[in-house]
Amino acid sequence: MSGKLIIVGTGPGNPDQTTPQAIAAIEASSVFFGYGPYLDRLTLRDDQRRVASDNREELARAKDALHTAASGEKVCVVSGGDPGVFAMAAAVCEAIEAGPPAWRALDVEIVPGVTAMLAVAARAGAPLGHDFCAISLSDNLKPWTVIEQRLRAVASAGLVIALYNPISKARPWQLGTAFAILREVLPWGTPVIFGRAAGRPDEAITVVSLADADAATADMATCVIIGSPETRIIEREGMAPLVYSPRSTGGAK
Amino acid sequence: MSGKLIIVGTGPGNPDQTTPQAIAAIEASSVFFGYGPYLDRLTLRDDQRRVASDNREELARAKDALHTAASGEKVCVVSGGDPGVFAMAAAVCEAIEAGPPAWRALDVEIVPGVTAMLAVAARAGAPLGHDFCAISLSDNLKPWTVIEQRLRAVASAGLVIALYNPISKARPWQLGTAFAILREVLPWGTPVIFGRAAGRPDEAITVVSLADADAATADMATCVIIGSPETRIIEREGMAPLVYSPRSTGGAK
Repeated sequence: MSGKLIIVGTGPGNPDQTTPQAIAAIEASSVFFGYGPYLDRLTLRDDQRRVASDNREELARAKDALHTAASGEKVCVVSGGDPGVFAMAAAVCEAIEAGPPAWRALDVEIVPGVTAMLAVAARAGAPLGHDFCAISLSDNLKPWTVIEQRLRAVASAGLVIALYNPISKARPWQLGTAFAILREVLPWGTPVIFGRAAGRPDEAITVVSLADADAATADMATCVIIGSPETRIIEREGMAPLVYSPRSTGGAK
Repeated sequence: MSGKLIIVGTGPGNPDQTTPQAIAAIEASSVFFGYGPYLDRLTLRDDQRRVASDNREELARAKDALHTAASGEKVCVVSGGDPGVFAMAAAVCEAIEAGPPAWRALDVEIVPGVTAMLAVAARAGAPLGHDFCAISLSDNLKPWTVIEQRLRAVASAGLVIALYNPISKARPWQLGTAFAILREVLPWGTPVIFGRAAGRPDEAITVVSLADADAATADMATCVIIGSPETRIIEREGMAPLVYSPRSTGGAK
């Protein structure tokens, strides 16, 4: 079998944050599967074909991509950020496990990228400077009770929290409820960072206290980082503050 | 003040995984501070100066770098991986907060990179495909009791765990104890990935069950990923298995 499937992370959206490995993988592929806006970021040649799909059709897209690779094509599945973080790599693995034996024999490669929380953290200081976690607020694929339980557990244990998929038209209330839960566990002065489109021309980084965190500040392109009880803010005259989590800790809350 | 301090993440060590933004930042800097082996990866010009230090001297290095930037130099602080993940960005912020007011007025920029857990995950499948956390096993700067409490909390809540700084000469027993703690909370069949030097010529990716996980498999260049109870292994004939955490979950353990 001569087909190949490569799952590429293009980074947060600033071309300067896309790795040479990702660029080379894109140049070597012939058919591209992905969410339309991610495919729009690529500059493809006339001999390269794109198959755009909606961002809620990940498993169907993974199956289509595997079918195409199994037919002998060089297939590229495109994710923004890193393909292994709430993105296409897991969807492709699910499809392989449930699919025909031929899919297990395919040459599958995954190219990592800079994921959103790292790009947001870099613009804000070092909020992920100590133990942290990444949690998706999407309850399409897990019950909300699990999300709530996880938020309480990690906040109580003193981890910084990066929230992916914080809000969407189909998911309007979850982020506000998450803030309400975290206000029961964390000091109200804990810094919260809304990081929208980090590194892109339309970037917006907002730092507020947990008390003042308003879900309406976030949109689909936002990664929200909630500090631990030890996360600090350094004010700077005429410049954005630096938010950081010290490398040392006395103990969890 | 014309000085500048830029904190750069060079990625996991494969030059193809260093972003163009990091390369440009390195080219524009005149004095480089960092752990010797990270500086050794750079190709510097004759007019660029390097100041190497030991990997346990992060705060002193941050202060030296800030002093030099405040004197008007273009200073680059170099981290492997991402500078915001258990690396120099937090140390620089700590030094700024405790330092003279002039340091707060400095132009400070942080360039993100592909952090080790993403590079390891990409080589193993999609083990970070659902909620996950990153915890440092270094107890230089936090009490071991806090680490133990965090491990129990996140494993019980169903998060995948990436362990940074798992082992060193000064830290010989912590990883073995971490496995023992996790065996009290997680199914013994949970996949464990030892990812050494991912993406580099001396790469070694090993997948075992939690029951068989042996701390001696890790060294200082290893990132250890421990699955959640839902993490799965897809066996493939003649190829390494794919380890992945499904996007959906029925509930935490």
